[in-house]
Amino acid sequence: MSAGKTNPGSFFEDFAVGQVLQHATPRTLTSGDIAVYNSLYGPRFAVQSSDEFARAVGYPRSPVDDLLVFHTVFGKTVADISLNAIANLGYAECRFLVPVYPGDTLSATSEIIGLRENSNRASGVVYVRTRGRNQHGEIVLEYVRWVMVRKRDQTAAAPAPVMPKLAERVDPGALGRAVPKLAAYDFALAGAPHRWSDYAVGEKIDHADAMTLEEAEHQTATRLYQNTAKVHFNLHEQAQGQFKRRLVYGGVVISLARALSFNGLANAFHIAAINGGRHVGPCFAGDTVYAWSEVLERAELPGRSDIGALRTRLIAVKNRSSAAFPLRNAEGQHEDGVLLDLDWWLLLPR
Amino acid sequence: MSAGKTNPGSFFEDFAVGQVLQHATPRTLTSGDIAVYNSLYGPRFAVQSSDEFARAVGYPRSPVDDLLVFHTVFGKTVADISLNAIANLGYAECRFLVPVYPGDTLSATSEIIGLRENSNRASGVVYVRTRGRNQHGEIVLEYVRWVMVRKRDQTAAAPAPVMPKLAERVDPGALGRAVPKLAAYDFALAGAPHRWSDYAVGEKIDHADAMTLEEAEHQTATRLYQNTAKVHFNLHEQAQGQFKRRLVYGGVVISLARALSFNGLANAFHIAAINGGRHVGPCFAGDTVYAWSEVLERAELPGRSDIGALRTRLIAVKNRSSAAFPLRNAEGQHEDGVLLDLDWWLLLPR
Amino acid sequence: MSAGKTNPGSFFEDFAVGQVLQHATPRTLTSGDIAVYNSLYGPRFAVQSSDEFARAVGYPRSPVDDLLVFHTVFGKTVADISLNAIANLGYAECRFLVPVYPGDTLSATSEIIGLRENSNRASGVVYVRTRGRNQHGEIVLEYVRWVMVRKRDQTAAAPAPVMPKLAERVDPGALGRAVPKLAAYDFALAGAPHRWSDYAVGEKIDHADAMTLEEAEHQTATRLYQNTAKVHFNLHEQAQGQFKRRLVYGGVVISLARALSFNGLANAFHIAAINGGRHVGPCFAGDTVYAWSEVLERAELPGRSDIGALRTRLIAVKNRSSAAFPLRNAEGQHEDGVLLDLDWWLLLPR
Repeated sequence: MSAGKTNPGSFFEDFAVGQVLQHATPRTLTSGDIAVYNSLYGPRFAVQSSDEFARAVGYPRSPVDDLLVFHTVFGKTVADISLNAIANLGYAECRFLVPVYPGDTLSATSEIIGLRENSNRASGVVYVRTRGRNQHGEIVLEYVRWVMVRKRDQTAAAPAPVMPKLAERVDPGALGRAVPKLAAYDFALAGAPHRWSDYAVGEKIDHADAMTLEEAEHQTATRLYQNTAKVHFNLHEQAQGQFKRRLVYGGVVISLARALSFNGLANAFHIAAINGGRHVGPCFAGDTVYAWSEVLERAELPGRSDIGALRTRLIAVKNRSSAAFPLRNAEGQHEDGVLLDLDWWLLLPR
Repeated sequence: MSAGKTNPGSFFEDFAVGQVLQHATPRTLTSGDIAVYNSLYGPRFAVQSSDEFARAVGYPRSPVDDLLVFHTVFGKTVADISLNAIANLGYAECRFLVPVYPGDTLSATSEIIGLRENSNRASGVVYVRTRGRNQHGEIVLEYVRWVMVRKRDQTAAAPAPVMPKLAERVDPGALGRAVPKLAAYDFALAGAPHRWSDYAVGEKIDHADAMTLEEAEHQTATRLYQNTAKVHFNLHEQAQGQFKRRLVYGGVVISLARALSFNGLANAFHIAAINGGRHVGPCFAGDTVYAWSEVLERAELPGRSDIGALRTRLIAVKNRSSAAFPLRNAEGQHEDGVLLDLDWWLLLPR
Repeated sequence: MSAGKTNPGSFFEDFAVGQVLQHATPRTLTSGDIAVYNSLYGPRFAVQSSDEFARAVGYPRSPVDDLLVFHTVFGKTVADISLNAIANLGYAECRFLVPVYPGDTLSATSEIIGLRENSNRASGVVYVRTRGRNQHGEIVLEYVRWVMVRKRDQTAAAPAPVMPKLAERVDPGALGRAVPKLAAYDFALAGAPHRWSDYAVGEKIDHADAMTLEEAEHQTATRLYQNTAKVHFNLHEQAQGQFKRRLVYGGVVISLARALSFNGLANAFHIAAINGGRHVGPCFAGDTVYAWSEVLERAELPGRSDIGALRTRLIAVKNRSSAAFPLRNAEGQHEDGVLLDLDWWLLLPR
């Protein structure tokens, strides 16, 4: 009599390598979505904040924050990929290819590129390559993620394991396609004098600022992305679970850490690629998030004397200061309180 | 020296049958209002989410969510009708007549169509027919509601009771005026394959998802509608009242249940009419809301082979799963935890 | 190895009279920002709410709420002026000069106009005149504020004290530049019949409504203004401080009291100037804010028979009713619970 129309989500055995999924719901991003996003994280990068600044730089107007694009595309995949996920394990080969502007409509597809049953036979790892497209069919974003997904039936036969070969980092030669040739860039208006060449490999930057998260905030953010994964929203159910409370969507931590990183990386106005990333620990409402960055690599971009790429590791920690750059203990484990260990390429003016 | 300019709200004896009230404040709905609305409930209906999808369907662009229109119009009536209300008792004959688009300005008038003093002489029931109009003067929405309103003076004479005759349900022959002739409708993008004809009378649908409400969320929603009824906002005063806390505006529960209903009714993209509805129990911050629907009736629309109408009952419950379709106990009373019992017409592609 | 790129904020000895600071980050205000603002406070002034109403009055469309403009400009100054502030002491000579519309981009500069070391030598008072400009370079807003700022080094030499001479109130002859010649003004749609001439000097108005503030709300508001002062956001650090919790940005209290003041001042659609103001007591999440106003002065504007100016004192109190107009006790001290004592010029139709 029922259940037939309710989406129960996919289980591990429902996926097959090569399968392509068209995700619902296409979404037109507006200046309203941007305002809600800004009010939840408080980013201050001038290119995204001011149409005038963006035009001076060479954009037709302010592009949408890269992470709002990422979360919007990611959100679409949840109902098809990770409704029965146990954990989001990692990201790789994420590239931001085309700027998105208010009024653009994003949709998403995912291809299953790998499957591996876990030895406990209760779950398996699903690798997907997701592509976000605008209304012109251009791929604005693509990334690989892998998630641990429950099996419906423990006894179901496992597919032959397929493990995709993923790049350790995105080749910097491929970066910068979403950034116009820089015309004018006003460092005073942008908030700091530091250019690409002012950063050194090995340099660590304490972003110093911090923010305490509330339930209403992370829920509002996650709904903005139309991401309805129940662990973020259903206290009645979560109260019976491992953590006894709602879990903050990992993307909220990424956006928060990115906004905090303005203090020290004010001119890193574009995320060109995410090389990899792990949500090291769970984040809950009431936690105070701090962040710091380390410069891992510096790369020139072919044919671009205007901008350069900085590969940084962005670390978010909770309920402890970032001033001492907490990361790993003597045993090589992530220290208590580390939430996020992200490796990405940022672009800055040269 | 004071009070002369402060609106004390109307009392039961201030109303007269036939009286027409022009409500303040006209409001231009923008893509910003839509973004705030979406971030509070997380709806995923494709027509309202994507301008591209809406254009393919036949709209000039995405129309504003029907319930945002409803709450905006409703909000305007509060200062004149229900500032001294004890309870919002019911809705009837609600029809969505013209689509509303970002940039449209809504204003509202109400006509008093019925009055009946309660036997305790301390209060009475006021019936109003409210009309929301756009900037062209078109009625975009009309509905009847009745509220129990305090008397200023218990000894004041009661008017002759007038009880309006209200339709048990909106005639389906009158539905669909706000929907263009459907051109293309992409069921994959919309998130589910189920058409009008796939639903059977008597079918029950567990929407499965759930959401826990926070104070900041319901307050933000209610302010978005410029609804300033103090029971929703003033903890200092409510702490002395019956519930010892702020009461969630019933419209928040309706919007939440509607958003949850996407899971099972993904193609029910338009609310054409509300036949009736009751807020069965109070909702508070911290409550987790679940929802389920039952198909009550199926109707073809005259001259429309593109869309059909589904009359459903939407039930919201709190702090208990909707999987067993909780509604009434053996005595015919609403079960514990039932919040909302709504009867409406939804339109779907055929 | 670090800290070099993190903004530590300025200390008292970093300022010099005559110095002009260009603040980051320019910001384009959109209808999205307006929607977020409205959803946080619930203002109902018709000019700002309805493009149609604004056009009938003589504006090209609804102007942005004056306080959203104020907080946006203020927010830009925090990183340069008050990151190490102990207290925001006062405002003066604030004038709203040009209306701001969605799409306008605001930037801000500040000039140091006074400095005075405190006798404890640990801190000093910094006086700044801040100007907010639109993309055409027009000054849309200017104001003076003074803040108590920590010294980096207690033994550092103090500059010669310079105390700016500030007007006790903005001359009403200079008001009204941001308001077009009033064409039509519909008092019914605006929500109350009271014109400028209906208010009498000495009249007190209880705004009666009230709102309880949540952490998520004041944080969201403050981030909307890109104001990142850590006292508002960092519970982990504040838990060790004087109040053991996050402090609500004073501007949130001003906006809330302004929105509440609609009930009694519905036609005071424009804040023309702020003569002075003090945050008398701290506000925290969970507090319920009430407000009342007193009419201090009434002024005609030169050459304007359409509008008049009302100088009012706006008092916000917390966790107590505003009905008895609480302000000062017999000793002349602000009574318990008084949050805000603001003196401003409002414009109303004559």
